[in-house]
Amino acid sequence: MSDHRIRDFPVSLGCLPIGARNSITDVAGVRVGHKTLNEGTVRTGVTVVIPGEGNPFTTKYTAAAFVQNGFGKSVGLMQIEELGTLETPIALTNTLNVGKVSDALNEYIIGQSKNEGLVVGSINPVVGECNDSVLHDIQQRCIGYAEVMEAIETANKDFIQGDVGAGRSTICFGFKGGIGSASRIITVRGVENKIGTSSSECEQSYTIGVLVQSNFGATKDFILNGKPLGRWWLEQYQRIQAGQNLETSQADADLCKYGEFAYSESDQGSIIVIVATDLPVNDRQLKRIIKRAGVGIMRTGAYIGHGSGEVMIGFTTANRVPYDGPLFNTQQIIRDSALNPAFLGVAEATYEAILNSLVAAEAATSKDGYKYESLYEVLKQYEDLIAKI
Amino acid sequence: MSDHRIRDFPVSLGCLPIGARNSITDVAGVRVGHKTLNEGTVRTGVTVVIPGEGNPFTTKYTAAAFVQNGFGKSVGLMQIEELGTLETPIALTNTLNVGKVSDALNEYIIGQSKNEGLVVGSINPVVGECNDSVLHDIQQRCIGYAEVMEAIETANKDFIQGDVGAGRSTICFGFKGGIGSASRIITVRGVENKIGTSSSECEQSYTIGVLVQSNFGATKDFILNGKPLGRWWLEQYQRIQAGQNLETSQADADLCKYGEFAYSESDQGSIIVIVATDLPVNDRQLKRIIKRAGVGIMRTGAYIGHGSGEVMIGFTTANRVPYDGPLFNTQQIIRDSALNPAFLGVAEATYEAILNSLVAAEAATSKDGYKYESLYEVLKQYEDLIAKI
Amino acid sequence: MSDHRIRDFPVSLGCLPIGARNSITDVAGVRVGHKTLNEGTVRTGVTVVIPGEGNPFTTKYTAAAFVQNGFGKSVGLMQIEELGTLETPIALTNTLNVGKVSDALNEYIIGQSKNEGLVVGSINPVVGECNDSVLHDIQQRCIGYAEVMEAIETANKDFIQGDVGAGRSTICFGFKGGIGSASRIITVRGVENKIGTSSSECEQSYTIGVLVQSNFGATKDFILNGKPLGRWWLEQYQRIQAGQNLETSQADADLCKYGEFAYSESDQGSIIVIVATDLPVNDRQLKRIIKRAGVGIMRTGAYIGHGSGEVMIGFTTANRVPYDGPLFNTQQIIRDSALNPAFLGVAEATYEAILNSLVAAEAATSKDGYKYESLYEVLKQYEDLIAKI
Amino acid sequence: MSDHRIRDFPVSLGCLPIGARNSITDVAGVRVGHKTLNEGTVRTGVTVVIPGEGNPFTTKYTAAAFVQNGFGKSVGLMQIEELGTLETPIALTNTLNVGKVSDALNEYIIGQSKNEGLVVGSINPVVGECNDSVLHDIQQRCIGYAEVMEAIETANKDFIQGDVGAGRSTICFGFKGGIGSASRIITVRGVENKIGTSSSECEQSYTIGVLVQSNFGATKDFILNGKPLGRWWLEQYQRIQAGQNLETSQADADLCKYGEFAYSESDQGSIIVIVATDLPVNDRQLKRIIKRAGVGIMRTGAYIGHGSGEVMIGFTTANRVPYDGPLFNTQQIIRDSALNPAFLGVAEATYEAILNSLVAAEAATSKDGYKYESLYEVLKQYEDLIAKI
Repeated sequence: MSDHRIRDFPVSLGCLPIGARNSITDVAGVRVGHKTLNEGTVRTGVTVVIPGEGNPFTTKYTAAAFVQNGFGKSVGLMQIEELGTLETPIALTNTLNVGKVSDALNEYIIGQSKNEGLVVGSINPVVGECNDSVLHDIQQRCIGYAEVMEAIETANKDFIQGDVGAGRSTICFGFKGGIGSASRIITVRGVENKIGTSSSECEQSYTIGVLVQSNFGATKDFILNGKPLGRWWLEQYQRIQAGQNLETSQADADLCKYGEFAYSESDQGSIIVIVATDLPVNDRQLKRIIKRAGVGIMRTGAYIGHGSGEVMIGFTTANRVPYDGPLFNTQQIIRDSALNPAFLGVAEATYEAILNSLVAAEAATSKDGYKYESLYEVLKQYEDLIAKI
Repeated sequence: MSDHRIRDFPVSLGCLPIGARNSITDVAGVRVGHKTLNEGTVRTGVTVVIPGEGNPFTTKYTAAAFVQNGFGKSVGLMQIEELGTLETPIALTNTLNVGKVSDALNEYIIGQSKNEGLVVGSINPVVGECNDSVLHDIQQRCIGYAEVMEAIETANKDFIQGDVGAGRSTICFGFKGGIGSASRIITVRGVENKIGTSSSECEQSYTIGVLVQSNFGATKDFILNGKPLGRWWLEQYQRIQAGQNLETSQADADLCKYGEFAYSESDQGSIIVIVATDLPVNDRQLKRIIKRAGVGIMRTGAYIGHGSGEVMIGFTTANRVPYDGPLFNTQQIIRDSALNPAFLGVAEATYEAILNSLVAAEAATSKDGYKYESLYEVLKQYEDLIAKI
Repeated sequence: MSDHRIRDFPVSLGCLPIGARNSITDVAGVRVGHKTLNEGTVRTGVTVVIPGEGNPFTTKYTAAAFVQNGFGKSVGLMQIEELGTLETPIALTNTLNVGKVSDALNEYIIGQSKNEGLVVGSINPVVGECNDSVLHDIQQRCIGYAEVMEAIETANKDFIQGDVGAGRSTICFGFKGGIGSASRIITVRGVENKIGTSSSECEQSYTIGVLVQSNFGATKDFILNGKPLGRWWLEQYQRIQAGQNLETSQADADLCKYGEFAYSESDQGSIIVIVATDLPVNDRQLKRIIKRAGVGIMRTGAYIGHGSGEVMIGFTTANRVPYDGPLFNTQQIIRDSALNPAFLGVAEATYEAILNSLVAAEAATSKDGYKYESLYEVLKQYEDLIAKI
Repeated sequence: MSDHRIRDFPVSLGCLPIGARNSITDVAGVRVGHKTLNEGTVRTGVTVVIPGEGNPFTTKYTAAAFVQNGFGKSVGLMQIEELGTLETPIALTNTLNVGKVSDALNEYIIGQSKNEGLVVGSINPVVGECNDSVLHDIQQRCIGYAEVMEAIETANKDFIQGDVGAGRSTICFGFKGGIGSASRIITVRGVENKIGTSSSECEQSYTIGVLVQSNFGATKDFILNGKPLGRWWLEQYQRIQAGQNLETSQADADLCKYGEFAYSESDQGSIIVIVATDLPVNDRQLKRIIKRAGVGIMRTGAYIGHGSGEVMIGFTTANRVPYDGPLFNTQQIIRDSALNPAFLGVAEATYEAILNSLVAAEAATSKDGYKYESLYEVLKQYEDLIAKI
């Protein structure tokens, strides 16, 4: 983890302006917290996205989920699809720890609601996951209530990116992956709705924030700034370490190593994308918006491999849905034809969040001694060579 | 076709009150029109449901579609799913005539919009269908622009049910099927939304209207009033016509005939359910509502056979979506937890609409001389026997 | 829990033959186990359906899931939808205990696979749930690894139905609900596939088994044998206890009590349906089959209320998918047009399984003293009165 | 239309080998035909993809459909989703002509089947569409049975690409779009399935063919070879025509013109992707494969704008499904974990097919005199300038 960001490098990241923090927390109310475990072979964690102040159960968020590739174990999506609401923080963790983390979210909401005099008997915890078993002993399932609570309680507008929390041991394109974030300010335009007066053009600005847990991509497919950086990185090492054979372990091996470095042979491992916004939309529109996170993923050169569970979860802080609210709820809904800035915003922010997850992460070494390099180190160390690709 | 209704018989049809006409047109603005062809082997038609006054293209309706069993050729559902809107009347016709009828809807909307100075280049015509080939020479595809326009222009609050329009040659449980309709008045309750004052209980009434094109069900499965009327009907004729063999034509034969009467061997043929309401809902909620039309279908004893394409299409007259409206649209959205009366309403109205389609239809005879009896005639003629089932 | 079955009563349950045990375990290889907790306010449990001998992870089952109403917390459905396979036993439990039970399934598969020398890092546990909080202190979440393992280890062809395991505290139509099961033997017919010889008609028999966790339905909607038993039951008590007011607690109260008895005011609480078969189908066909479990649910009179999460999960023991199998897998796939017997089978077996869950359960009393009656007791005690409904 | 292909230029198009024709017709049996109308303001057409020899109705193809963005009017997808089969050629045309073209496919199948003694009463015509109203008077709907039949009868292994057939008047990134195609040879690897002997590694090669109707993309977003060619093209003309104002017509105008040239302001208009393969897969796997066509679309720089209906339709020539076949059908199904080469193949072929549609098309001029340039002309004329981007 580090303060490095992809904007420190001359990389084309789109045309929309960014928010003050260039992170998901640019959306008012949103906070992010981590708990990272680093003991022996236990190198994993949990990251929580808190959608806003107060108990999300009693004033739910309009929400949507989209499954790009369903090889994954995320929980809570079915009810989001049916009811269009989010009622817990969103937690990210490793594949086998989803059960314990979802149970911890239940405990958290039980407690929050008890404070408000509400005895909750039905909670829909939302948890996303990636498989970090290359660098972590995933069978141990060490993230429990204490760890989730620490992540929730330390959640903040400012938070660390890279190999932290649920990104502690993820791998992306054979580099060290992790948690990354970015944001965009979008401006939507149309006719104002004035009753009794003539209508006039208006425009409004909103924020789209994205946070990713990146754990996908084959090294050879990685594109940066329109250049095949992944292929170059493979060739670079082949040249340096000439004479050494490329060890491909078995037929469906994922991670082929040579020399001290490792890379990712195939596009697998997953990416979870959390999208937050303050744009007034309904759940159908939000689903349309978060689908475009796939655009950002694909700009990296990946092609959604069989083993890469790609899941998008989004919420808006507009159009809240109270637990015990009135019979009818008044909502402001944007015209669908004005959604393009939001689509572009989520595409750009997802792309940048992925790259941030990479440059913010430090290199990590597997237990058998292979190193997953930091993209930051590669970009710095080989700046001149990369310029010539 | 006739004025007969299932309420003329002592049948249990649910507990909710019905609308003034007990039809889909109880929803303010909704009208229904038919054009029926009855010439030689051409015995088919088209039925249109007009969602309201004016051009639906320029002030679209919030809409939803649900596919219970997708063995069918309905068109327009994809865009309803994506955008949550309806922009044409809904037309029903026979399976092979869907293309021509959808083209006619395009022509109609082009004309309507031209009157408003709008040159429309993209229209999503919505057409449902059933296969009426047992009684109609379906390969002829005789419903074109003129027929659709006649149905549209004669659309009215009062309309004929039974073997008319798109129901001219449908068969349901081996009886003559057709177009049927029913409605329910639902009362939703909750807390009023008053800003600045204390909230208080409130209740509001809305209308759920249903129209069906019924063409499904095996005779043996038909249940009426909790009694196995279908099985009884089969046995009845076996007794009357003792000595005659049951002719089962071929392995996958649908319609087995004996004596002069025909019945339906398997559950196939489809049913399309159109749901209209004035309840303030969004498209997600509307999809939840129309899903419960399946409850009404299943109360008849059917089990959604492989060949029975079952499709629900719904719209609300609340929350209209203007073509060139303001950037943000204000909508009133009901609480999801208050939807149960709407669910029950659509279940009851669908069940009754199916039974109305049956009792309103007159018997029809296939070209090889087999008769699909009118349920009305059966209920009248065998009243005493049925009472003893 | 008891040996009572609905077939002890003269109730119409369909026309297909039943299997030897009339339970899901009539499908070869399938076993069911329970662990029930009954200590003070902790009255809940877990039920597991074991799809067959051996480790399901290493020889996966072709599987499908269908969400009728997604207000629920089941886990594992996303991956079933994407990959069409089941790789763990299916566990049922209460709403808030899903996380811990899914974690226990992970632990179980880790252990099973370790025995085979496989270090598993990605598991898709499948868990369904109902909300049993009326009779159980649901916030305690007491079902952990030990309880799940006890259910797995005691799983058997013969198993108890009723208020046991995950059905310990469920309520169905205001009666005591629980775990119920039933099966059907279906015969599919068509042309034999003989290469080099003339084809001839053939028929094959297969088994459809269903297990339900029943926790849905408003008392007033319950239909039995075509009679409004639920309405009668409400009236019966109103007569007996004349003078007593019906206590309706609050606006959205579910459970209204009067006298010592309780009933269910609204259709909520959920039902999970597990379908097993040995029919050679692919995952798409299996999804079509399990959808028809909805037919069985609706035959009870329920209408899938807002709060009734209805989820179907199915698997076939044909067409297994080995974890490390060959590049191409040979599968036998039935013709879609031959699926109707399977559709009818799952409809009938689901209906009977629900009724079995009711008659096998014993009455239960809530902590504030209200009694959820056993349907068995009602049917026995009021036999004469019910005959006159 | 022309023989120009993107491979004539030094553009990076992926790493997989291409088929003999580098087109969808590299899949054995597949043929493509066009009929183009070019009379006055009627400048449109139809393109048909014939999946193989013989009547597709009597020996159906395993098929799948995927809707990336459902703002579109394609027909036939619902039944493909339910039954997993294709039973007609796939036709592409303009938005408002879908009805007539689907009716023509019905007529074609009726005739084909009549030749085989089969009286068909239920057909699922599959038609995709793009909106070509900028260059064509779309309200005329001139493509009828004669035009569709001409396309079918002239269908061939070799076919023209570019501004032909359904691509006559499409626009892509502000350049002239059209019909494009490409193919990839994929090699799948795994363990052979030998009964009774030891298993050994095996590999097999298959073909993935793609055909697109391209009508999407904002000029500013177009990326070629990692370079922002779209932005450069906009700037180029601004420089050349300095002094001239950029005419932006109205708020939601799509096509802004300056000087004699036109460009696309927003990402709208749609793309239909047809995928053919001979890989042995089932419909679920095929859906996974065609989803990756989105990767190819997004490599162009587009982000799936609101108004860009993006639909993928795929079929395999393996695992055919006979209309009156045996009760059980034997299928070879690939392991899901071996699908990555197919995913990559469809991504690469879709990307190349889009670029082929662009370079094969000749410039076109709208009725008000604005020119949609040919990408080929731009790449040729400004070769030196582009090299310096």
